[in-house]
Amino acid sequence: MKRRIIALLTDFGDTHYVGIMRGVILSINPNVVIVDITHNIRRHNIVEGAFILLNTYKYFPAKTIFVIVIDPGVGSSRKAIIVKCKRYIFIGPDNGVLYPSIIEDGVEDIYMITNRKYMLENISQTFHGRDIFAPIAGYVSRGIKLSEIGSKLNLSEIAKITFNKPIIRDKKIIGEILYIDGFGNIVTNIDANIIKKLCVGKHRISLEIAEHKYMLPLVKSYSDVDRGKPLLIIDSFNMLEIAINGGDASKYFSTKNGDKIIIEI
Amino acid sequence: MKRRIIALLTDFGDTHYVGIMRGVILSINPNVVIVDITHNIRRHNIVEGAFILLNTYKYFPAKTIFVIVIDPGVGSSRKAIIVKCKRYIFIGPDNGVLYPSIIEDGVEDIYMITNRKYMLENISQTFHGRDIFAPIAGYVSRGIKLSEIGSKLNLSEIAKITFNKPIIRDKKIIGEILYIDGFGNIVTNIDANIIKKLCVGKHRISLEIAEHKYMLPLVKSYSDVDRGKPLLIIDSFNMLEIAINGGDASKYFSTKNGDKIIIEI
Amino acid sequence: MKRRIIALLTDFGDTHYVGIMRGVILSINPNVVIVDITHNIRRHNIVEGAFILLNTYKYFPAKTIFVIVIDPGVGSSRKAIIVKCKRYIFIGPDNGVLYPSIIEDGVEDIYMITNRKYMLENISQTFHGRDIFAPIAGYVSRGIKLSEIGSKLNLSEIAKITFNKPIIRDKKIIGEILYIDGFGNIVTNIDANIIKKLCVGKHRISLEIAEHKYMLPLVKSYSDVDRGKPLLIIDSFNMLEIAINGGDASKYFSTKNGDKIIIEI
Repeated sequence: MKRRIIALLTDFGDTHYVGIMRGVILSINPNVVIVDITHNIRRHNIVEGAFILLNTYKYFPAKTIFVIVIDPGVGSSRKAIIVKCKRYIFIGPDNGVLYPSIIEDGVEDIYMITNRKYMLENISQTFHGRDIFAPIAGYVSRGIKLSEIGSKLNLSEIAKITFNKPIIRDKKIIGEILYIDGFGNIVTNIDANIIKKLCVGKHRISLEIAEHKYMLPLVKSYSDVDRGKPLLIIDSFNMLEIAINGGDASKYFSTKNGDKIIIEI
Repeated sequence: MKRRIIALLTDFGDTHYVGIMRGVILSINPNVVIVDITHNIRRHNIVEGAFILLNTYKYFPAKTIFVIVIDPGVGSSRKAIIVKCKRYIFIGPDNGVLYPSIIEDGVEDIYMITNRKYMLENISQTFHGRDIFAPIAGYVSRGIKLSEIGSKLNLSEIAKITFNKPIIRDKKIIGEILYIDGFGNIVTNIDANIIKKLCVGKHRISLEIAEHKYMLPLVKSYSDVDRGKPLLIIDSFNMLEIAINGGDASKYFSTKNGDKIIIEI
Repeated sequence: MKRRIIALLTDFGDTHYVGIMRGVILSINPNVVIVDITHNIRRHNIVEGAFILLNTYKYFPAKTIFVIVIDPGVGSSRKAIIVKCKRYIFIGPDNGVLYPSIIEDGVEDIYMITNRKYMLENISQTFHGRDIFAPIAGYVSRGIKLSEIGSKLNLSEIAKITFNKPIIRDKKIIGEILYIDGFGNIVTNIDANIIKKLCVGKHRISLEIAEHKYMLPLVKSYSDVDRGKPLLIIDSFNMLEIAINGGDASKYFSTKNGDKIIIEI
C-alpha cells in the first residue's frame, strides 16, 4: 500500500510541541510519512498561515493530509474541523486558516471534529495539536470514514478569510503587503497578470510605499541590481515582490503586513 | 518488519550537527525512521532537556529509541549510557538528562557504552552525537544485543536529576518555575491536582512572582482574557502555567527558570 | 527496492520554501526519504555552504542525492548542474558550492540541467529550489538516466571554490577563520595534523586573533576549563577550534569569517 503523507504547518517554531505531534501520529500510524511545511508562521497569525498554506498545498501529492495548528482560540468555543476536498484533506481549527485553500481545491465535505474515540484520552485546554488534530490525522491516514469523526457542516457555517485584491483606478494600482518572508522580501497582492497587462515594457516602475515614493527597476533576477539595492520582481508566489538584493526589504522600507502599495501606471 | 523509530532531542538548533547525526544513523540502518523532538533545548541546559524528554517520550510508539544529546561534558570523563526501559530505549550522556524519564518508564537494564565496534572509527573530542550516540542508535535499531555495547551499571551509579516539588504551608503553595517555553509561557512545578484540591471554586488566584503580587484569573482558554492580559491556566504539561494571551509572560513578569512562585490559598 | 535518500542543504531557514521542496520531491517520488542537513547556512554564503557540505556528505549512505540551494544568482545566467561522483550525486547551482565535495568524492560526470521535462511546468525567477532542483532530484531518485537531464560539462567549465591553507613561516602558523558555528565556536583552517606536528607537547598556545594576543590552553574537552573561559581544541571538523566553555567565542573575540589567526610555534 502507498505510504500516506501528513504535512504539518504550525506557528510552534522548533519546539517539543511539534515533536509530540509527530510522536502521537506515529503511535497511531507508524507507516505514515510526516512532512514539515514550516513551523515559523508568525505566532497566532492566521492570515499568514492561510496565505502560506494556499501557496504550498498544491505542491504535495494528492491525498496528502494537511494538519494546520495556528490556533489562538485553543480551548475556547471555536470548532475543530476536517475538510475533504477534491485532491486533499485539511484538518485544523475553524478560524479561517484553511478557507482559501479548501475553496481553491474544491470542498466536498466538512465535518466538525467531535468523536472522542479519535482523540487522546485527556484533552488539554492549551494544546489541541497534540490532543485532537494529530490523532485525527493519524486515524484518517489509516483510512477511517470521515463521517465517523463528527457531524457535517455547511460551508456557510465555517470561518472565512479572504485576501484583498488590488484596486485599479486613476492610473494607479492600489495594493497592499500580503506577506513578508523570512528574508524580509515584501510580497504584495498585485499578481503577475496585472503587471504584465498594465506595466508592459516598463523597466522602471513608480511605487509608493510607507508614504515614500521610489522609482524601482523591474528585474528578472535579484542579482540584476547591485547588492544592497532595491528592486521589483515577479516572485515564486507569482506576485509582485519588493526586494533588496542580498538584503532585507521590510527593514529598508520600514513596512509591515497590510501596508498600502501604490503603483503609478 | 516494522520500521523502527529513532527520536532525536538536542540543543544543537537547526545545524549540520543534527544533519550529520541523521546521515550516520541512515548509513547504519537505512530503514529506520528518524523523528525530531526538538533541537531547541537551551544550550547545555540539562534540566530543561530532562523536563522536555519526560513530557514527550510517552507520546511515541513503544520501542522508540531516544537519542538525547545535551552534553556540556562531551570529551570529559562523563560516561555514555544506554538504558533499556519497559517501553522505550534511551541513549545519551550520563549527566541526569535521561533520569526522570527512565525512572517513570521503568528501568530494566543500564549499560555503559564502551564497545568501539559500534562507534565511528574516529572519535572526536567535541561531537559524540555523531561519533557515539548516533551509531549506537543505528545499531540498536538493527537489533544488536544491548549487552554487547558495554558493561552493566546499577541505577545508583548514574547521574540523577529530580524536579523540586512545591511546598504547601501557612496557607501558601510555594512553587517554582520549571520551564519557560518558546512563547514565553511560564510553566510552574505546581500540578493540576494541587490546584484542583486547594483552589477549588476560585476564579482569581493571588500569586507572587519576582517579588510582586498579582491577582490573576484562572481560565480555560488563553483567549478568555483580552490580548496582552495575564492569566493562569492548567496547560498541556498538566501544570499551572502563567501566560499572557498572545504575549510573552516571561518578559512581562521578568522571570527565569527556578524563580519562586507563591500562591495564597 | 532500497529507499533512496535525498538530503537537503539550503539557506532558507525553517520556511515554507523548504516545505514546498519536500512536497515537490514527494509528488515525483513518494518512496524517497528526505533528510535535512541544515537550512541555516548564512544567507547567500556560498563558501559556508561549501564548507558544511564538505564536512557532512561523507556521513550519508552511498547513493544519497544531495540538493544544495544556496543560490544568490537565482534567475541570472548561472548554470544549474548535477554531478555524478564515485559515491554520491550532487545537485545545485553552479556557483562553487558543490566544488570541494565533488572533488573529494571523485567526479565522474557533470551535466548542465536543461531538460524542461524534468522541471516544474512554470519556472519562476526566484525559486529554482522548487522549480528545478527539487524535481530533478525526484526524477533522479526514480532512476532516470543522468544524460537525459542535459549536456555534459567538463570540470574546467564549472565554478570553483577552494579553502585557503594556512601558511607556516618564521615560526608562525598563519591561518584564518573558516567557519563560525551556531554556538559561536570559531573553526580555523589549521588542521589537527599541523597542530600535532608543530605544537607537540604544548599545553598552552600563543595565539593572535583580531590583533590581540592570547595564551590559550589546548584541551581535550570544553569542560577542561571553567565556564566562560577560552580554550583551544581539536574539534569535530578535525580542525583547531577556538571556543569558550559554555559561551560564544565569536563574540568574545569579536571575530568574523576570514579573519586571520596567527599561532607562534
